[in-house]
Amino acid sequence: MALLMEHQFKQLPADKQVETRSFLESVSYLPPFFDCLGSTVFAPIKADIVGNITTIKAVFDSNPSRFKTLQKILEAEKELHGADWPKVGATLALMWLKRGLRFIQVLLQSLVDGEKDENNPNLIRVNCTKAYELALKKYHGWLVQKLFKAAVFAAPYKADFLKALSKGRKVKEEDCLDKIRQFLVNFTAANDAIYEMYTKMNAELDYTV
Amino acid sequence: MALLMEHQFKQLPADKQVETRSFLESVSYLPPFFDCLGSTVFAPIKADIVGNITTIKAVFDSNPSRFKTLQKILEAEKELHGADWPKVGATLALMWLKRGLRFIQVLLQSLVDGEKDENNPNLIRVNCTKAYELALKKYHGWLVQKLFKAAVFAAPYKADFLKALSKGRKVKEEDCLDKIRQFLVNFTAANDAIYEMYTKMNAELDYTV
Ligand SMILES: CCCCCCCCCCCCC/C=C/[C@@H](O)[C@H](CO[C@@H]1O[C@H](CO)[C@H](O)[C@H](OS(=O)(=O)O)[C@H]1O)NC(=O)CCCCCCCCCCC
Ligand SMILES: CCCCCCCCCCCCC/C=C/[C@@H](O)[C@H](CO[C@@H]1O[C@H](CO)[C@H](O)[C@H](OS(=O)(=O)O)[C@H]1O)NC(=O)CCCCCCCCCCC
Repeated sequence: MALLMEHQFKQLPADKQVETRSFLESVSYLPPFFDCLGSTVFAPIKADIVGNITTIKAVFDSNPSRFKTLQKILEAEKELHGADWPKVGATLALMWLKRGLRFIQVLLQSLVDGEKDENNPNLIRVNCTKAYELALKKYHGWLVQKLFKAAVFAAPYKADFLKALSKGRKVKEEDCLDKIRQFLVNFTAANDAIYEMYTKMNAELDYTV
Repeated sequence: MALLMEHQFKQLPADKQVETRSFLESVSYLPPFFDCLGSTVFAPIKADIVGNITTIKAVFDSNPSRFKTLQKILEAEKELHGADWPKVGATLALMWLKRGLRFIQVLLQSLVDGEKDENNPNLIRVNCTKAYELALKKYHGWLVQKLFKAAVFAAPYKADFLKALSKGRKVKEEDCLDKIRQFLVNFTAANDAIYEMYTKMNAELDYTV
């Protein structure tokens, strides 16, 4: 789990405000996650997520002290964009990014919880499908859902996926799962806080693509 | 057919050498073609083609007088990259780009030839499928082929497609088809010449993605 463990998310402070700089730093290590899935088919997904990060980073860089926390960005954009908000700017980018993060989170959680298809214990399709259903499906029209169903067949074997997450080093499966558990603590907390913020600020949209 | 007609490909000279500058200029108007297909699902395809064009343009811009024709680029890269060639540089980018161009070419040709599914004369699926089979299928593994099969359901109605190609202006279908016919003359000749060049220079690869 070198890939993820070397770049843990910061612990969430008591006021649950996510700091923009460290958040951007931590998520920038996630796109290679999609390379671990093994197929070039996932390149457009990776590109979409990289695009989200780039959008948020551009806003942050325009005024790092003003945009110290993610909430400051949403507040400023709400003010700035009026009726176009929240389907705009870093607010829109983070809206989608958090869904990709939740996909990753649920997938990893499902793996450490040992959920599996008893008939195909070496596959991670059930875990991907669960993650997709909880994180993304409702925001996808029938066509993208259909594409997902096809794409999930390209998901790697569990052993290969865990090995890729460990940057190809030989690690015992149990050790790897332990490290994923550790990673998930702050990662899940940060992402939950972002979801809460979208709800509280009425910034969540449910249109489909 | 404003979209395509305003940016005709140059007529091929007798020596069949395609000039890099005018080629790049003409193809740069093609990516919006994929917007005419109507769905965001085609965004990754557009991005792939834009990437090809960017790669070729970067090489050209590094020395416009040296890389006056596409063949000059292939020759220089063959020299430069040794055993890695042709799976490298602008040679690789153009190898894939020409397949995307052929897809567009066959699709448009099939439309002007009046090929249609008699049961669904308003759809362009048969034309897309023919174009896919002739231009791309053999370079795609089973998974991407499966994705194509799903994606083709997102193709627009023929009338909407032709309207989009005319930039939304009201044009009679017959006029639009006439303009496509005109566009196809130089476009097809240029692309055929590129295919021939790849064959002659032994630069064609048939690996699948
Ligand atoms: C020739 C062959 C033909 C083949 C046809 C190919 C068709 C390809 C279809 C590709 C779909 C790729 C996934 C991308 C989907 C995206 O459409 C959505 C919305 O994307 C958002 O859209 C916004 C505007 O509405 C802004 O532009 C956002 O951008 S902004 O920064 O400008 O604000 C952008 O992220 N993102 C998503 O759904 C997010 C997806 C995250 C995915 C997470 C993991 C899934 C893993 C699955 C593993 C089994
Ligand atoms: C959450 C939901 C999950 C959804 C899962 C989404 C899966 C998305 C799969 C997307 C496939 C998109 C199509 C792109 C395919 C590309 O993989 C291939 C090869 O692409 C080439 O690869 C080379 C290295 O081998 C270089 O990188 C080239 O790049 S280089 O510039 O670096 O040299 C690059 O173009 N291009 C292609 O096959 C070209 C495709 C042209 C397509 C033409 C039209 C088809 C239209 C169809 C209309 C009905």
